[in-house]
Amino acid sequence: MDATLSSGVVRAGRQAREQFHDARGYGDPDGEGVRLAPVEAAHLLYRGDLDAVDGMGFREFLASAACPDLHFLVYKDLRDRGFYLSPTGVDWVEDYGQTDLVVYPRGKGPWDDEIAYRVRVVSERATVPAADLGDVVLAVVDEESEITYLETDRPDVSGATDYGPPGDTPGSLLDDRVLVWDPPADLYERGFYGQPLDRDGETVETLQLSLVEAAYLVRQNALVLATDGDDETAVLDRGRTVEGDRFDRRLRVYSALREAGVVPKTGYKFGADFRTYADVESVSELSHSELLVRVVPDGHGFAPRDLALDVRLAGGVRKRMVFALTAAGIEWLSAERLTP
Amino acid sequence: MDATLSSGVVRAGRQAREQFHDARGYGDPDGEGVRLAPVEAAHLLYRGDLDAVDGMGFREFLASAACPDLHFLVYKDLRDRGFYLSPTGVDWVEDYGQTDLVVYPRGKGPWDDEIAYRVRVVSERATVPAADLGDVVLAVVDEESEITYLETDRPDVSGATDYGPPGDTPGSLLDDRVLVWDPPADLYERGFYGQPLDRDGETVETLQLSLVEAAYLVRQNALVLATDGDDETAVLDRGRTVEGDRFDRRLRVYSALREAGVVPKTGYKFGADFRTYADVESVSELSHSELLVRVVPDGHGFAPRDLALDVRLAGGVRKRMVFALTAAGIEWLSAERLTP
Repeated sequence: MDATLSSGVVRAGRQAREQFHDARGYGDPDGEGVRLAPVEAAHLLYRGDLDAVDGMGFREFLASAACPDLHFLVYKDLRDRGFYLSPTGVDWVEDYGQTDLVVYPRGKGPWDDEIAYRVRVVSERATVPAADLGDVVLAVVDEESEITYLETDRPDVSGATDYGPPGDTPGSLLDDRVLVWDPPADLYERGFYGQPLDRDGETVETLQLSLVEAAYLVRQNALVLATDGDDETAVLDRGRTVEGDRFDRRLRVYSALREAGVVPKTGYKFGADFRTYADVESVSELSHSELLVRVVPDGHGFAPRDLALDVRLAGGVRKRMVFALTAAGIEWLSAERLTP
Repeated sequence: MDATLSSGVVRAGRQAREQFHDARGYGDPDGEGVRLAPVEAAHLLYRGDLDAVDGMGFREFLASAACPDLHFLVYKDLRDRGFYLSPTGVDWVEDYGQTDLVVYPRGKGPWDDEIAYRVRVVSERATVPAADLGDVVLAVVDEESEITYLETDRPDVSGATDYGPPGDTPGSLLDDRVLVWDPPADLYERGFYGQPLDRDGETVETLQLSLVEAAYLVRQNALVLATDGDDETAVLDRGRTVEGDRFDRRLRVYSALREAGVVPKTGYKFGADFRTYADVESVSELSHSELLVRVVPDGHGFAPRDLALDVRLAGGVRKRMVFALTAAGIEWLSAERLTP
């Protein structure tokens, strides 16, 4: 069976319509015949269902400019997994924005009114703007043509931790941390601020605070540093010296998490900015942290390679990977591995 | 018991020498008395063994410029783990270069002639030149003062894979991969080149090669592409278009691994450049890959955060993390988690 290509649309006759569209969800009815997106035609050529498009067999058609080869690889993979799906970019498929393939639930097709996934196809070397993500599935094709699916979402991040630190605890600003001698009993145990340097039985004798914790507590009037000038200025300056602009972004996200009842602690060991605990009653009865948070600057573009690394690492420690997009406000973006 | 500080050395009397040096490995004999590095003095103050150094108690001494607080944290941690150790930077401890703390085997001390670890102390925000690593243990102190130990080494990377591809297999250069139609039977199965697009039973009908695989095979005269000009130029140009300079670095490392009998495949899913197989007999009897390889440019500096992430991820999948330092030649640098 043969077909023709014109203006980016492949057309075939009545028999093709019956066999490809009606029976298997390819393309769209076109009078008595059927219209096909180039990727659909490539798949039919690949399967041997179509013999040629304008005289081109599968090899010639795939190597031609008409058919984007990454899209073909993902289309084929999803067909192999038992889905019917439609490429966008043709006028009979709705353009949802940032979507290359509209995937229907298993057992459904383009004639139903239901969508399982909206898929965007990217090479592992592409850069994907953070702003584009949140309601698409990324299909990342690596250099050896293997495909990883990453589902993105815009989650709500909030918790139930309820602790207010007491006022005016004294501390000392060292190189890049703050030491609190004889801290209030609950500052660590209930508030999960800092890390004990040493303890006498149950009692924390010296508490080490990170600069971001210290800056937040100074702003809450909960910490007083014996600096020569303004304490807030001193700790912010120190933070910017060791981390640059990143310190301000991290402090904004740290504060937003604390205000939302979530306790952030360093995520260093996981390569993230923070790991978070949604509901801290006391540190001695702490459950596992739920989220890994990475703070990204306004206008950030993700390298799929880095995204995959973060998601894999978070999955390996049973946490959810969340990105804090810092623009005017803070937006949360999650990503996790999907097996369609 | 009191001590005095002068020119970066703390001095105390005979009783201190007996109690601190002779019994517990602090400092160095100094006539009848003992000389101590500031970090050692801080630890003795912290324990209450010393009362004051020039009138300063532990808090004042740690907050003073005399004592680097990161070094103190690591010193204390290693003492807590049961080691005797000596800070460098004083004239009675050999300067090994890139070393802040010389750690003796458990049960041994500065009077023995044996070293367990040479430790370099870094903040998680520091940048560590790749060239400095290879025979030190990095003690990375995170912002909440937790310490991660990373052992670095210069391993030999070689394998026993023995396969030479046949000459002049034809292929087609697509956007960022190469397709080989009807490839030689062993190219995939024995050589582990490419990824099958489809197979007919045991037979691979179409093989997809990455650009780096294709460039290597073209240089071996094993692959012929139907390009208009020189095949090698065409595939290198394509690689540089999608990856920039990184493509040349990766190709150099890919080639070095192949020449050493090691099979590199993409490490994308692990956030690395390659995963490697030291001994491929056939793909159907493949064992797990052993190394994750990340290619770094000449003069690269590591962020300890990224290093920890790589090492953690490699550990999670039971592989060894190896960095390929690309300067005049290629040097291999490994890093793994250490629990002293």
